[in-house]
Amino acid sequence: MKGIYFDGKRAEYRKNLPMPKRSDTESLIRILYAGVCSTDREILKGYRPDFYGIMGHEFVGIVEESPDLELIGKMVVGELNAGCGHCIYCQTGREKHCENRRVIGMDGKDGCFAEYMTLETHLLHRVPSCLGAKEALLTEPLAAALEILSQVHIRPDVPVGIIGDGRLAYLIAGVLQLSGVRLTIFGKHEKKLEEFEVFGQTRLAEEIAGLKKSPYETFELVVEASGSPSGLEMASVLVRRQGMILLKSTYAGRAQVDMSQFVVNEITIKGSRCGPFEPALRLLEKGLVKLPPAEFYSMEEWEKAFASKAFKAGFVVE
Amino acid sequence: MKGIYFDGKRAEYRKNLPMPKRSDTESLIRILYAGVCSTDREILKGYRPDFYGIMGHEFVGIVEESPDLELIGKMVVGELNAGCGHCIYCQTGREKHCENRRVIGMDGKDGCFAEYMTLETHLLHRVPSCLGAKEALLTEPLAAALEILSQVHIRPDVPVGIIGDGRLAYLIAGVLQLSGVRLTIFGKHEKKLEEFEVFGQTRLAEEIAGLKKSPYETFELVVEASGSPSGLEMASVLVRRQGMILLKSTYAGRAQVDMSQFVVNEITIKGSRCGPFEPALRLLEKGLVKLPPAEFYSMEEWEKAFASKAFKAGFVVE
Repeated sequence: MKGIYFDGKRAEYRKNLPMPKRSDTESLIRILYAGVCSTDREILKGYRPDFYGIMGHEFVGIVEESPDLELIGKMVVGELNAGCGHCIYCQTGREKHCENRRVIGMDGKDGCFAEYMTLETHLLHRVPSCLGAKEALLTEPLAAALEILSQVHIRPDVPVGIIGDGRLAYLIAGVLQLSGVRLTIFGKHEKKLEEFEVFGQTRLAEEIAGLKKSPYETFELVVEASGSPSGLEMASVLVRRQGMILLKSTYAGRAQVDMSQFVVNEITIKGSRCGPFEPALRLLEKGLVKLPPAEFYSMEEWEKAFASKAFKAGFVVE
Repeated sequence: MKGIYFDGKRAEYRKNLPMPKRSDTESLIRILYAGVCSTDREILKGYRPDFYGIMGHEFVGIVEESPDLELIGKMVVGELNAGCGHCIYCQTGREKHCENRRVIGMDGKDGCFAEYMTLETHLLHRVPSCLGAKEALLTEPLAAALEILSQVHIRPDVPVGIIGDGRLAYLIAGVLQLSGVRLTIFGKHEKKLEEFEVFGQTRLAEEIAGLKKSPYETFELVVEASGSPSGLEMASVLVRRQGMILLKSTYAGRAQVDMSQFVVNEITIKGSRCGPFEPALRLLEKGLVKLPPAEFYSMEEWEKAFASKAFKAGFVVE
């Protein structure tokens, strides 16, 4: 079959990949669409040095084989992390934190940039019939945005800031504004920021840098989704005392951080990763989330998809 | 009057300090006992370069003058932070975070290492009559330990780790064990750790360093109270995924931190400072908190008190 293979150093479009074989508990999925995520781009930069295999973790597909006969022929999306099932994390509802988990397209498991993929059946979610495949492709990143609501009580009457003007920030803004909060989005790209004006106030990050903020211009919650180490520094300036910084950005390397300021000002910093699929599907089904402008390519053109500046880039696989 | 004066660089015992004058809203307090805190020691090292004046912020005293006539002649303890009363922090129950606050012995206000001190009357708390002055002196640091319970829901059925074997760690351990949790205390000093055995299991920190932990040896909550930048690194190893690190340590300078690990493992980091006085007085009154071994000195011997290795050092002022 055709797919995009990462050999540990470079990615490559291949036409002769072997068909995957499912285990007894897995399903075989024919991929329709797959989405490119910044994590995929980070993998090309060395973010996952131990991984080799088929890339990709955002997909929509049709189940062709499955131990759950009702799923066969149905359109599905799927979660990334398959835990061992036995450890303290798997047994306390934290399968995605299992230390021995396999993660499609990232860790010990082939991904979805291919014609077929296998996945543990309990990780699959049926796409509601009224939802198109391209819209359903947003389930995974939307779930990651919704993880914020799983972790934090968002009070509708407090000001919330978002740092970042990329695709994840777009979905986060789209989700947070649903709770009625007053949103301000800080970004570096004037053009991209324009797309955020439907969600709240937008501010160019450079206007803020180094500014001494009045407490009235600060935020009870600041979501850091810039993907850059400088985002945390900016979040420290923008967050109100006793407030919270929610971290969505991952990057290689360490940051120089003045931790004492967080103690004195009693700031909470919370890391946030993958989120719940079912609420994401419900929001998509109800049309409550504004979909980002997207571009689609064939897998042969994978380099164009990876280089795309669009809010969302993906592959038409079928 | 006599007192310990910090001139911005050095501390000095002085006999001829002027008597403080109270404002209309303040009370005049005759100091009985005062406690030395690590923050006082940090001030001598340059932690508060803008401060000059009488040092000290932990005290027990007798009210001599006050707009609240019922307080006169009564034994009191008092909170450190006097806010402006008008800003967003003062108006939302966060007076201790007021950006224009005056802090006794630290910021814009003379402290309690003297025969007399003035303080805003609303910051005073009466000491229950059955409580001795020396015990009441622990109200302020005990309140700082109790701040953890104000900030975090401590479930009695989860394992909790404490990093640090100093005085604050001692009070934190004493408070946390009251909720029935399984405590483990990690310290660097074998001798000091012995004093913690009544609270839970003790472990020498060096036995842990660099160890690959099994998830079963990790903690849902790790309280970092070591006072050292290396404490955060150790907390990162000890904390369970989706768990919390509570930071109590302040120190000068920045730490090198791998923030991405906190995102991927969805760790929460929470800063924690001063806490509520009334619950601290209730616990002391009921004898529910084990008091740390203490040493007392005259103010003339202030250098001995500052150099003391005891869990608690203080001054007999009266």
